[in-house]
Amino acid sequence: MDLYGRDLITTQEWEKWELEEALDLAARMKRDRFSLEFTHLLEHKTFIMFFYNPSVRTRISFEAAMTELGGHSQFMTPSAGRFKTSKTAGETVEDAAKVMARFAAGIGIRILEDKVPYYGAGTELLREYARWADVPILNMADDRFHPFQGLADVMGWAEWYGEGPGRPNYRALEGKKFVLTWAQGALARSWCSVQEALLIASRFGMHVTLARPDGYDLDPEVIEWTRRNCEENDTTFEVTNDPVAGLDGAHIVYARNWMSPNAYQDGEFKKQEEIEKAMKITGWTLDAEKMARTDNAIFTHPMPVDRGNEVTDEVASGPRSAIYDIAENRLHVQKAVMALTMGNL
Amino acid sequence: MDLYGRDLITTQEWEKWELEEALDLAARMKRDRFSLEFTHLLEHKTFIMFFYNPSVRTRISFEAAMTELGGHSQFMTPSAGRFKTSKTAGETVEDAAKVMARFAAGIGIRILEDKVPYYGAGTELLREYARWADVPILNMADDRFHPFQGLADVMGWAEWYGEGPGRPNYRALEGKKFVLTWAQGALARSWCSVQEALLIASRFGMHVTLARPDGYDLDPEVIEWTRRNCEENDTTFEVTNDPVAGLDGAHIVYARNWMSPNAYQDGEFKKQEEIEKAMKITGWTLDAEKMARTDNAIFTHPMPVDRGNEVTDEVASGPRSAIYDIAENRLHVQKAVMALTMGNL
Amino acid sequence: MDLYGRDLITTQEWEKWELEEALDLAARMKRDRFSLEFTHLLEHKTFIMFFYNPSVRTRISFEAAMTELGGHSQFMTPSAGRFKTSKTAGETVEDAAKVMARFAAGIGIRILEDKVPYYGAGTELLREYARWADVPILNMADDRFHPFQGLADVMGWAEWYGEGPGRPNYRALEGKKFVLTWAQGALARSWCSVQEALLIASRFGMHVTLARPDGYDLDPEVIEWTRRNCEENDTTFEVTNDPVAGLDGAHIVYARNWMSPNAYQDGEFKKQEEIEKAMKITGWTLDAEKMARTDNAIFTHPMPVDRGNEVTDEVASGPRSAIYDIAENRLHVQKAVMALTMGNL
Repeated sequence: MDLYGRDLITTQEWEKWELEEALDLAARMKRDRFSLEFTHLLEHKTFIMFFYNPSVRTRISFEAAMTELGGHSQFMTPSAGRFKTSKTAGETVEDAAKVMARFAAGIGIRILEDKVPYYGAGTELLREYARWADVPILNMADDRFHPFQGLADVMGWAEWYGEGPGRPNYRALEGKKFVLTWAQGALARSWCSVQEALLIASRFGMHVTLARPDGYDLDPEVIEWTRRNCEENDTTFEVTNDPVAGLDGAHIVYARNWMSPNAYQDGEFKKQEEIEKAMKITGWTLDAEKMARTDNAIFTHPMPVDRGNEVTDEVASGPRSAIYDIAENRLHVQKAVMALTMGNL
Repeated sequence: MDLYGRDLITTQEWEKWELEEALDLAARMKRDRFSLEFTHLLEHKTFIMFFYNPSVRTRISFEAAMTELGGHSQFMTPSAGRFKTSKTAGETVEDAAKVMARFAAGIGIRILEDKVPYYGAGTELLREYARWADVPILNMADDRFHPFQGLADVMGWAEWYGEGPGRPNYRALEGKKFVLTWAQGALARSWCSVQEALLIASRFGMHVTLARPDGYDLDPEVIEWTRRNCEENDTTFEVTNDPVAGLDGAHIVYARNWMSPNAYQDGEFKKQEEIEKAMKITGWTLDAEKMARTDNAIFTHPMPVDRGNEVTDEVASGPRSAIYDIAENRLHVQKAVMALTMGNL
Repeated sequence: MDLYGRDLITTQEWEKWELEEALDLAARMKRDRFSLEFTHLLEHKTFIMFFYNPSVRTRISFEAAMTELGGHSQFMTPSAGRFKTSKTAGETVEDAAKVMARFAAGIGIRILEDKVPYYGAGTELLREYARWADVPILNMADDRFHPFQGLADVMGWAEWYGEGPGRPNYRALEGKKFVLTWAQGALARSWCSVQEALLIASRFGMHVTLARPDGYDLDPEVIEWTRRNCEENDTTFEVTNDPVAGLDGAHIVYARNWMSPNAYQDGEFKKQEEIEKAMKITGWTLDAEKMARTDNAIFTHPMPVDRGNEVTDEVASGPRSAIYDIAENRLHVQKAVMALTMGNL
């Protein structure tokens, strides 16, 4: 039983021990980043990165991951419309995936809400690739999930409640209070990072509070999975529309803007309307006053941070901000998962 | 006498033994893909890929080829208009090529019909680069030729009529019947793949039949070369406008859409008119009924396949479809030619 | 005292012995390009290249540099507008730089005049990155400076007045006469290359003459630095509006078009007006007749050359043209500086 050949669409679909195996390897890789133990694991192997949506951080970290493992990541920006559909001539995903699997050891895909006709279509494209490709399909963020962000998050939390960088303690997270709170902003952010955070926080035994204004619910299925994860771990899951009350006694606060469920209408992604609606809501910037209500909580965020809107500089750059450590962890968890799924460890 | 420093514009310009040397190395590389014998052949060397036209398959396979040989391919998308012309200020090809040769071990160029002012101008650009660059110029598909597709094709055919993947038998192709047939479709495909297929099939001793509707002739010079190749090998070359009759007794059937010779008019590439004209022609989809007339022929295609138009799913995904093996061979023949021309083997 | 961790924004900010250390290593690397002594210096390390402006030569040479040092360069084309400004939501340079420094061993930035709101804003962006990133920021050309071109230039001059490729003699340049002359052309070139040339020529002990039509002055601060460099070396610095007289007795002639100081107006870069103004000026093409006035001078240019406008073919391709050797030197000086600043030599 190993992880060779496995896809990673969302952490929710991996067993807890599988996530722990990846996280353990990530910590070892962080402690000794350029060790010969690791730098040849994917030597001369190719990883294909399909960026339907651009990204700086995800691009750099996935490409660096292969470089550090001895292989090479190819950066590609496909147009979503190149495949055969009811309206367009083109290649089937079956043919594309089967050929790519002949060339590459794995395929990463990033496709967010503005590139798909309806919510969930991004994840569906990944599943279609996974169906046909003989090599792992790794989710570099789609419209629903962002598993590598979730892994980087929980690794970072466990480092802050453990013995520091490269020395996470996942047991220490059990029973801690995790608060995910909506935040102001003009960027109509995707759901993928915050949904993955709910899943991974509940998976690792934390009490979970979700605070958001009315009208800013997330994917019902993800909420249901989060509730079930909490039940299985005997922890609580609460939802509130109060931007302050839920913070009492929190150990980890995740403040992030996201779009409302009405962002998709008539097959279109209404970004401008989302921004206008969000800009009318006040009182949801995370600041030092709010943080004072917590149990000396750490601040967590997947970056890029919209400073001044989502969070004040005082909190984002403060002594309890875990954002840079977590950003770095993206590299380590990606290296670990790539080595395990593509490298036959 | 070796291949170091040689350009590859079309297989027709290489001696038969030179093609065989490349194909033999490709088979060895396929049998033992990541052997230390091969992974250091181009270590720390740079190959520049100029994609005037985008491509997924060609890009992945050329970039992976360098990774597997220890080097690195740079992906570039130049605008065709950056050079000095009678109308624009800019750099000469002479200067560009001479400088690149200082940095790189070889240069690949892909430039198709829609990026050039007249048929043949793509090949001419490659020859201009080859004139000035001290390093090999490799044709990653131009408006006339596609040598690596031709090599991948013949390697795949010889594998299917040999002992399977990595064990081609080129003698077994001699005297077999090869049919290239035009096929329906809305994509107005380039001539380069099918022309290279005619050249390589006739070069390796096959009887060749070209079936196409009236008005879909190919490059007269390529046809003449094909005829001459057949003469030299004592095989037949036939041209027909019947979509069915030529298939009788065929061993290899290549069904592919292509544009008509009228695609260029007044210095413009009339893609939309080509598509409309092609869509009116029926009876040219390759299906199981047609394949039943052959001598249990294999189906070959350079991909991407326009399923339902060029060929039915039954044939494309059937037990005699060689398309994925041939697609994979692109990697192996490219590695072999790059190692021979750039690696001083 | 070493160069590890140092930024390179302009050669003027490095001590003379630091420049010499880099140039000495570059010559060793040129003499034995793929020596094991060098090919592992940055093994498995990542260099991020931000090309706000596209470039063929700079891209190829920086990417090849990392390949030859064992690492990998990531090619990125950011939009200048992605950062938080008074008008746009977005990420701060602080956050972006801090995260990138977790992934990469160094960051290169290219940003020219047409991507910034006023002259100097390009250099300022590099300084802002340098302020926050814990890894070296290397200037791949901004609106003011082009340090790697300057290093490649002086290395090439010293090779031509030394013992040839890879055997530069920097002492031989002392007391020689360097002429930078404006040249005709329709490309409204940046100031960065020619300004860096003034700085490096004056730094290495040459007499400097700047010839340009009235109205084509360069950055007053760079002119002042050049004057001071000459004073410190006891050499002369002259400015003239005569396209011919200054060439008398010259040893090195650098002919290049550049835009006027009026290119920026009301926060806009007026390229078309610059081109029209420049096209009215005649008599500034460097030709063999002019070169005959020199002391058998070499011709130097950062390329791409606008042949026929900036210089005649006879001079650009003549026996005293150093342009290809200098272009090649870009690779070697970049490798040397990267190894010294990022590789902990």
